[in-house]
This record gives sequence, C-alpha cells and structure tokens, in this order.
Amino acid sequence: MDALTQYLESHQEQFLEDLKAVLRIPSVSTEPQYKEDMLRCARHVADDFRKAGMTRVEIVPTAGHPVVYAEWLGAPGKPTALLYGHYDVQPVDPLELWQTQPFEPTIRDGKLYARGACDDKGQVYMHVAAIQAHMKVNGRLPINLKCVIEGEEEAGSDNLEKFLREWRKQLDADVIVVSDTGMLGPDQPALCYGLRGLVYTQIDVTGPARDLHSGEFGGAVQNPANALCAIVAGLKDSDGRITVPGFYDRVKPLTQAERDVLGRVPFDEPGFIHEAGSPVAFGEKGYTTLERVWVRPTCDVNGLVSGYIGEGAKTVLPSFASAKVSMRLVPDQDPKDLFARFEAHVRKLAPPGVTLKVHDLHSAPPFMTDFDHPMLQAAVRALARSWPKPPAMIREGGSIPVMATFKETHGLPSILMGFGLADDNLHAPNEKYNLTSFHGGTKSCAYLYEELAKGA
Amino acid sequence: MDALTQYLESHQEQFLEDLKAVLRIPSVSTEPQYKEDMLRCARHVADDFRKAGMTRVEIVPTAGHPVVYAEWLGAPGKPTALLYGHYDVQPVDPLELWQTQPFEPTIRDGKLYARGACDDKGQVYMHVAAIQAHMKVNGRLPINLKCVIEGEEEAGSDNLEKFLREWRKQLDADVIVVSDTGMLGPDQPALCYGLRGLVYTQIDVTGPARDLHSGEFGGAVQNPANALCAIVAGLKDSDGRITVPGFYDRVKPLTQAERDVLGRVPFDEPGFIHEAGSPVAFGEKGYTTLERVWVRPTCDVNGLVSGYIGEGAKTVLPSFASAKVSMRLVPDQDPKDLFARFEAHVRKLAPPGVTLKVHDLHSAPPFMTDFDHPMLQAAVRALARSWPKPPAMIREGGSIPVMATFKETHGLPSILMGFGLADDNLHAPNEKYNLTSFHGGTKSCAYLYEELAKGA
Repeated sequence: MDALTQYLESHQEQFLEDLKAVLRIPSVSTEPQYKEDMLRCARHVADDFRKAGMTRVEIVPTAGHPVVYAEWLGAPGKPTALLYGHYDVQPVDPLELWQTQPFEPTIRDGKLYARGACDDKGQVYMHVAAIQAHMKVNGRLPINLKCVIEGEEEAGSDNLEKFLREWRKQLDADVIVVSDTGMLGPDQPALCYGLRGLVYTQIDVTGPARDLHSGEFGGAVQNPANALCAIVAGLKDSDGRITVPGFYDRVKPLTQAERDVLGRVPFDEPGFIHEAGSPVAFGEKGYTTLERVWVRPTCDVNGLVSGYIGEGAKTVLPSFASAKVSMRLVPDQDPKDLFARFEAHVRKLAPPGVTLKVHDLHSAPPFMTDFDHPMLQAAVRALARSWPKPPAMIREGGSIPVMATFKETHGLPSILMGFGLADDNLHAPNEKYNLTSFHGGTKSCAYLYEELAKGA
Repeated sequence: MDALTQYLESHQEQFLEDLKAVLRIPSVSTEPQYKEDMLRCARHVADDFRKAGMTRVEIVPTAGHPVVYAEWLGAPGKPTALLYGHYDVQPVDPLELWQTQPFEPTIRDGKLYARGACDDKGQVYMHVAAIQAHMKVNGRLPINLKCVIEGEEEAGSDNLEKFLREWRKQLDADVIVVSDTGMLGPDQPALCYGLRGLVYTQIDVTGPARDLHSGEFGGAVQNPANALCAIVAGLKDSDGRITVPGFYDRVKPLTQAERDVLGRVPFDEPGFIHEAGSPVAFGEKGYTTLERVWVRPTCDVNGLVSGYIGEGAKTVLPSFASAKVSMRLVPDQDPKDLFARFEAHVRKLAPPGVTLKVHDLHSAPPFMTDFDHPMLQAAVRALARSWPKPPAMIREGGSIPVMATFKETHGLPSILMGFGLADDNLHAPNEKYNLTSFHGGTKSCAYLYEELAKGA
C-alpha cells in the first residue's frame, strides 16, 4: 500500500469529524434568516482549505453570499484543475419528518445524516481531505489546483457568473472537476457526461381581490385555485407529453445506438422506483425509466398553495393560488426560449376571470461533455483504482447550472465525478451520505490528482 | 315614538359595548388552542342572556364545545319562538391582511370591525338587546322565547343534532328564528326562504413515500401535485358544469315563474361583482349571477397545498398533495348521495401511480321554506316597521346546516331574518358589521316578538 493510501485510510475518523463540523452550520442560502450562518460557513470552509495546505485562500464577496476561493499552484508544467463545489444547502422543511435534527450530523448504520451530508458539503470535503493527504505525505499536490466553492447553488447561482467572468483569467485551467453527482450503487462508481437543464417557474393566479365566503359568492366568480388546477392539468396530455407548443422542437432525438448504451448501464429500475417509494413507475409513453430521467424533459409541480390549508373546513373562496412548476431540459433545449413558450401557453390555458403572473425563478441550460475526452479517461483510471467495479458512463437527471456558465466562460472539458446514492434524500428530510461513499470518494479524488498529473 | 323604540334608540351605545365585549373573546371553534376561550365565550354569552332578563340559562356540555341555552316562558297562550345563533367564529388567517386585530373590535366609518362582528355574534346580540329592551320597558316579552346559541357552527355543528334530539321536547316551539343571513343593501332588508346545502371534502393524494429531488426522479414517477390538479380540473367542464355523474339529477329545474321572481329582486350585480373584487362575473353557462349563487349548485376549491410553498425555488418532487373541495347544493340534492358520487368520480379521474383518500369533512342539506307562511308574514311586518324599504324575499348561497336538522327534529316554519351585507368580509380578513345593520336589526328583532305575539 502506498503512503498516500495509507494516510487516507488511517485518517478517516478525522476527515469525518471535519465534515461533521461544517455540517453543523445551517447554510441555507434561500432563506434570509440564515445570512449570518452563510458567512460563518464560508469562513469555516476557507479555514479548512487553508489548514489542508492551500496557499492562497480568499472569501470573495458577491451581491449575494460570498464565494470561497482556494489555490495551490506549486506544480509548474503540470495540468491545472479547477474544482467547483458549493457550501450552501437546501431548506430543511418539513422539519418534523427528520429523524434527527438536520444540523446535528448523526451516524446511523454506516450513514451520516445531515442536511448537506451529500449535497454538497460531503463531496467538497472529500477534496479537502484529499488535498490534506497529498500535502502531509508529499508536501505538495501532483497538479495545480484552483477551488471555487460557492454559496448560492441551491438559490440559482445568481452571482456566480459575474464572479467567473471577473476572475476569468485567474481561474484559467485545463479541466473542471465537480463532485456533485452520484454513483449507481454503493460499490458502482460512475462518471457523468450529461446533465439536464432547468426552467423553474412560479404561476400566480389572482381571482377576487380578497378571500370570499364560498356560499355567498361561490358560482358567480372564477375561483383562482380551480383556474390554477386547470392550467397545471393542461400542461401535459394523458400520455405524459408536455403540451407547451414547440417544447420538443430542440430535443435531440434518441438514436438506437444511444438507447443501446443506456440499456447497458447497470441500472436497478425496481430498486430505483422502490427508493422513490412510488407504487409504480410512471412517465412519458414510449420511454424506459432511465430514459425518462436522463434524456427526456419533464414538467413537475414543486409546490401548490391556495386558500385555507389548516385542519378541518373553512368555506373560503380564495383570492389567490400559486404553483411552483419546473421543467427539466435536455440538449439542445434553451431555458429562455422555453420560458417564453411556457408563459404564453399558461396564459392561453388560463380561464377568464383571473389575472396571471408567471415568474422565471431560475434556470440552467442542459449540459453534455464528450465522454472519450482524455481528461475524463484520467478520472476513469482514478475510479478504477479506488473501487471494486469500473465506473459506468452515465448521465444525470438533475442540473448543475454552473456547468453551462463554465462552458461559456472557460470552455473546458469537465469531470463530473460524484458519489451520491439514489436514497440519499437530497432536497428532502433525512438527507444522508454513506460513509463508504465519503471514504471511497476521498480516495478517488486523491488519485484523480495523480492521474491528471500523468498527462491525460 | 313608543317606549320600546325610545329605549332601543337611547341605549344603542350600551348595546354596542356589550357586543364589543363578546367580540374580544377569540372563540375559534375549529382550532384546538382556543378551547378555553370557547368555554369563556359560552359563559359570557350566558351571563348576558341572564342580565337581559331570561329566567333559565344553562351552559349545556356536548362532546365538543358547549351550547348556551336561555329561556323565558312567561307568556302563556302566546306563541313560542326558538332562536338559533352561534357564538363561535371562523379562523382569522391570513392575520397579516387585517387592518386592525380581529379580536380587538374597532369602529371605523360607521362600521364595527372584528372577527364575528356580523357572523354571528353581532346578530345574536341584536336579540340580547331586544330582550333587554322589552324586559326594561314592559317587564316581560310579548312571546315565549327559547334560545339555542351553539359553539360549533363554523366546525360543522357536529354535536348539535344530538343536543336537539335530546332536548327535543324542551325546545318545542311554534317558529324558529335565525339571524345569520343578509340584507340586499344598507337600507334594503330581506327575508330568506332558501339556503344552499354543502358537501365539504378533502382530497389527499400521495405519490412517492417521501419528497424526492425533481432532477433525480422527475419524469419517472407520478407527481401527486400534478395528479391533484388533473383531478380538480376534471371536476368541471369548460361551461362551468360539474362533471360528477348524476350531480344534477335531483336539482329542481328553474321554472320561468321562479326566474321572473328572481329577476325582480333588487340585486345590484355590478356592485356584487365589484364587492367580490373579481375582474368579471364568471359561472355556469346559461344562468344569471343571482341564479348562480341562489339556485344553482357549485364546486369550489377552498384550499390547496403541496410540496414547497416558501419563497424562491426548491426542486422537490412532493410526496403529498391535498385539496379542500366543497360543493354548494340546492333542493333536492342530498349530501350523502353526492359525496359518494363525488368520491367515485375523483377515483376515476386519478391518474395511475398515486393513492387517494377522499374525506367527507362536513355537509348540510339544502333548505327551503314556504314564503307565504303567516309566521314569515309577521317578520315582513316587523321589518317594514324598522326599515325605510319593505323586505325583499330572497334566497342565499350559503348554508346554515342546522336548518335541516331543525326541520327534521322539530318540523317548524322558520324565519331567516339577518342583516349582513355583501361586503362584510365573512370568513375573510377585516370582517365587519355596519352599525346601521346592528341598530336597525335590533329594532327588527324587538318588533318581531311583538308581531309574532299578534298571532301570525
């Protein structure tokens, strides 16, 4: 066993304690009451990069939450990797469904439970550990490394693009490395070469100027909640196809060759549906479950609210109804184009007697990279060294909006090497990260730096 | 001016203070945290009836909130009236939309603002004042009077029927008097001879066992919020007709004669729609606004909730979605029959991949009385004495569930003589009661006892 591996294995306990410390900070970027905690978290992450051995560490203010920047450039002639991650986390509600408190990291049955355990603090801290290991064992990294850890990924990364543009030259690199994706199973690593994009909207429907008595006025005026349901129901047909005109125009058709590749992915469909806890698989007609989540666009309601939502009965005819509706996009759909089409379609679906506002809350274009690229092949070797099975080449259904921005600002090949699992409860109560993912992933990160250094 | 009228006019200030005192008690029957306040309110109302001169006053416990009973039987040979009202009020949310606190009664511009100001404490206290006036001026009432003031009207009157059955003999009377309805305008009194019924349901849709990441799982499983919208949208067609099979089977067809009577009601349609604050009138094709709210059934969403309803974006695929959906019924529709039909229809509308629960939260049959009845004619005279315009004979769109129970337990003619206005914000923020309604209504109640005594 080489000295690096030995160090990595003998320091697992300390790596875990370092991760738990950052998980205790409630860095929820979308909720204003956590503003101070966000800053505290940025400082904490910066300190940990500094302790690991990075030579230049900065907390860079933005119009929103700050970016943590860390670099080590002591390997002239070697490739430079630009690592991206985020220290912000999703909101925790409904809090009552958590078995243990979201910001009190707890280990149960080989899994670390906390908000952000996997998404994305757990994955960022694999790199912090890998950096520390190289520094302690060799006094240096095998490559040059620049780290950008942002605080607004869960809030739409509103201020990251400006930062990337302003720092464009300082962030020059040969490859982008992101650990914010998943594995196919606890011992099946994966490299992701495609992500879906996103258009996240909010439809606000106003009927009467105030809540009315449903007996006194019911039947005589349009009910905005009924209207909203009619609009949402009109967004898809009975085959699960989205009815927004032109929605599928720019979707790359799925070739038989791609279907064959997808068919070979070791994907456990019954296990996936079981993890979801749904009674049955359900989706667009004519596609497999894997195709539905990786290569087909979607239209999902993320939230609904109107009128009286307390216990029992209140005979109110509500003044207002609102739905959060998001669409996952695939290459080559364009978020701006689709939001405009979506809004026009929603307006067409709206019955008379209500006024509408349709908001574009945030968006990200879909992303794909060439999976034969030599940088990606370095990652394949790193994973092969650290896991029992060779990595699967996959796509993912989620979005990492910044990938599109990076492509635009830096135009670099990207390695999406992540270790999340389907049952990690991302964005839901009881988020967790398997310790096998954390420790195995830490090794993969450490080896990745070595493999990239070998010249991809 | 007779002594009674003189007393009524000179004691308006005191009557108002008495009403304000009871409005300060937050007697919200549907929310468990107000249980103690409910009891406090019952005691307060009982005390006020006692002070007014009623000889037997009791607080009668039920399985829920108690009933206040008060009687005066000192007029042998004269008719006995059974007065019904309620001391419980609707919840107050959204609290932030109230201009002044709901339980701090405030007078602005000749109107008394408070939760319950009109519905129904304000209307009950017109009778308390009328009783006091008769007692002070004449030492007696012109008729025998039994008062049943319940505490669960806004919660479905679950325990009233049992009380009415158990007290059936003690509550024997010649006529039922209810002040819980409205006028057509500030100087246009009305007598109501028909009310719509109600079936109030809750549709709970469960998809995945937990909230999912909409990127990771979106497209592969049924989204319960999308499913709920499809169900709700399927409850009506584009003409506003309800699609539940058999829904209209027992609706009495509207004859031309009835349409003519309705056409003569001094109803200000533009004013009504303006009061609603809706951009336009909207409802079932082929009917006028007045017909839509008085003689046609409805199906309205009262509340919707699912997934993330906070600020900003959360990419969750919700586990659960729920809608409160209520139907207003007209003679001779039957709530039990219609709930069964509704549930069956909802189950048929539900797409695959979700499980459903459909709850019958509460219901009331529609109600009508003969508007030529002599007891009602006594009320016509009482109103004619106290208001500048003769009363209009109307129906109402709301429900007083207990009317059907009274009909079953006592089979008596009923006088629905109320003084609410369309802009009183019943069940909404900023509920109010015009002082002209309160003081004019108090006179009408006092005169009603006299007119009933004259022999209807």
